[in-house]
Amino acid sequence: MSRTVITLLTDFGLSDEYVGVMKGVIWGIAPDVAIADISHAVPPQNVLHGALLLGRAYRYFPAGSIHVAVVDPGVGTSRRGIALRVGEHTFVGPDNGLFTAPLTGGEPFIAVSLDNPAYRLPAVSRSFHGRDVFAPAAAHLANGVPLAELGEPVSDPVILEIPRPLRIANVWNAQVLLVDAFGNLITNLTEADLQGQVVAEVRCQGQVIQGVEVTFGSRQLGELLAMFDGSGSLSLCVVNGSAAERLGTGAGARVEVLVSLT
Amino acid sequence: MSRTVITLLTDFGLSDEYVGVMKGVIWGIAPDVAIADISHAVPPQNVLHGALLLGRAYRYFPAGSIHVAVVDPGVGTSRRGIALRVGEHTFVGPDNGLFTAPLTGGEPFIAVSLDNPAYRLPAVSRSFHGRDVFAPAAAHLANGVPLAELGEPVSDPVILEIPRPLRIANVWNAQVLLVDAFGNLITNLTEADLQGQVVAEVRCQGQVIQGVEVTFGSRQLGELLAMFDGSGSLSLCVVNGSAAERLGTGAGARVEVLVSLT
Amino acid sequence: MSRTVITLLTDFGLSDEYVGVMKGVIWGIAPDVAIADISHAVPPQNVLHGALLLGRAYRYFPAGSIHVAVVDPGVGTSRRGIALRVGEHTFVGPDNGLFTAPLTGGEPFIAVSLDNPAYRLPAVSRSFHGRDVFAPAAAHLANGVPLAELGEPVSDPVILEIPRPLRIANVWNAQVLLVDAFGNLITNLTEADLQGQVVAEVRCQGQVIQGVEVTFGSRQLGELLAMFDGSGSLSLCVVNGSAAERLGTGAGARVEVLVSLT
Repeated sequence: MSRTVITLLTDFGLSDEYVGVMKGVIWGIAPDVAIADISHAVPPQNVLHGALLLGRAYRYFPAGSIHVAVVDPGVGTSRRGIALRVGEHTFVGPDNGLFTAPLTGGEPFIAVSLDNPAYRLPAVSRSFHGRDVFAPAAAHLANGVPLAELGEPVSDPVILEIPRPLRIANVWNAQVLLVDAFGNLITNLTEADLQGQVVAEVRCQGQVIQGVEVTFGSRQLGELLAMFDGSGSLSLCVVNGSAAERLGTGAGARVEVLVSLT
Repeated sequence: MSRTVITLLTDFGLSDEYVGVMKGVIWGIAPDVAIADISHAVPPQNVLHGALLLGRAYRYFPAGSIHVAVVDPGVGTSRRGIALRVGEHTFVGPDNGLFTAPLTGGEPFIAVSLDNPAYRLPAVSRSFHGRDVFAPAAAHLANGVPLAELGEPVSDPVILEIPRPLRIANVWNAQVLLVDAFGNLITNLTEADLQGQVVAEVRCQGQVIQGVEVTFGSRQLGELLAMFDGSGSLSLCVVNGSAAERLGTGAGARVEVLVSLT
Repeated sequence: MSRTVITLLTDFGLSDEYVGVMKGVIWGIAPDVAIADISHAVPPQNVLHGALLLGRAYRYFPAGSIHVAVVDPGVGTSRRGIALRVGEHTFVGPDNGLFTAPLTGGEPFIAVSLDNPAYRLPAVSRSFHGRDVFAPAAAHLANGVPLAELGEPVSDPVILEIPRPLRIANVWNAQVLLVDAFGNLITNLTEADLQGQVVAEVRCQGQVIQGVEVTFGSRQLGELLAMFDGSGSLSLCVVNGSAAERLGTGAGARVEVLVSLT
């Protein structure tokens, strides 16, 4: 039988001991799980950013994986902790919208609040539920504890409004959702949205890009281009450079896409 | 039987190949251990910072864990390498004070110097003992080599002076020991120190904070507050912000805490 | 039987989900492998830097390890993906020179191009072959798939020109290849190059250093010195400081070394 993967996504950074401590707690309960970091560089308290990264990542992990996400501005308030299962993936973290992607993918879910003290550390602090509540819950789930054991059912987990692109006649009004470390500007407009349409122009910050490229290789070093990234999102890129720097912009920037219908 | 966890704490950063190479050496000797990074962002040569992080982290790892710490300004000099055992935790690294927390926790220890060439790499460099001495020692210990095999007993491992808070009448003179990635200012005054006292005011950099909050949730976004962090240390925090930035200060800053006795 | 180690070296950074996703793909195919990060901080598209780090790291991993390297400015063009075996190490990535070190170590190699769609993800994107091609290939190799199954033989993998030091009479003209996180300037001149010679002076940026030290411990805090690093490369260092900062220079800087023959 193959071992379970637990993934971690937080805004803790890697400078402090916080992420390592979560791994210690997990391995203390479930010694054989594999642990993968998705990112710990979510901007502090930016739940939407965390939700977007998780949405782009989780399907690439094996069936049976457990995804712990902790971007938690409400830690210590009455916000719930939850565990939820969608298809063959399980998610554990604060109930604040981090799990919007799996919850809005059209699949049914089951969710519980993390009430049962048997699956927490003996002492629960008021500021570090990643260590005291979420890591233990994930580890116990990896050990085969049924989801329903963790607490009461939840029927209304928090779901964030992810900005969606809007088409008026032949113009899509899109926006940049994420900027990656290369400086690629990743928009909310997808290959699926553009099915059956031909992109004539992509406009952002006064710059006009003709069409969508299939690959970086089709343009010159340093050229600005539009292409679909590895997740199918329309992205603005500079060949071997940074589009964010070139256009002096980032998440939230408006992008207009002119299409003609085929 | 559950696999052993080896933790790594260094000032190597993650840009270079150094940390990965230590993992290669460990897995070459002990293929089944799990390896967790605690931090590799200790400020270069800052042994005290490393000792503090390790002290906050190690108890959360399973009994039997082996903690390798390498912040090693004296590498290549006559400073000893040591392995030591305190309770169910084992520590490996330079004998320069990195292990002050486990050594001063009131538990007995046994320690040896890392003299035995059988448990080093065949060639030992003069600048990378993390790879050549400490990683192999930890891996051999994980394989069940007795501590006493590694070298001669050490009775006087180096212990750092960690600044302690001082109370004069109803004022505690404390100081900031660590600043985490959120900008929380973590002081040397603990919940235990303040047992039976009521905090009236916390003063730092000319700012006055009334009382100690139980949770972030009890104050407004952007407010400066004092609370006990997940390790029980009095911390100055800004709700969803950075106290270090707000107060323009960091490690070493003086904090005064006025208490009334109940 | 001990589990296989897969290493990862990329220019992806750790902020985005890219590295985590590669681990998810690997563990989905080969659940029991151990995964070690060598570095994800290769400067974007800097193939030479990646090749140098990999060359310094790979020998420290156990025999049988599989090294995935992705610094891939040509992704989406006609550049090949390759897998190659040199001694007991296997390498997977774009065929752009990343594997120059193992290919030029004097050992024979066998290599194939990654043509076989059976060992890729079902859908291959045009910009993320780390996820879609290289991670699956490495995982299948770890599962025991023979190298020759992955595709057609390659006899001419790309090899980079690594700048070599040149000696004219008693002066070596060397250069800085890498700057590590401590600010050490790592040159292309090695202990082996200097066999049988005595270093009189090392010159860089107008500074003159007398001789080569055996260890940091032999000079004062803050002094500039030359020594051989843990990989046997002549390096310029400042005791507990940064030589890069002191000399205001970095990769590519010229270093002159005066020797006398013994």
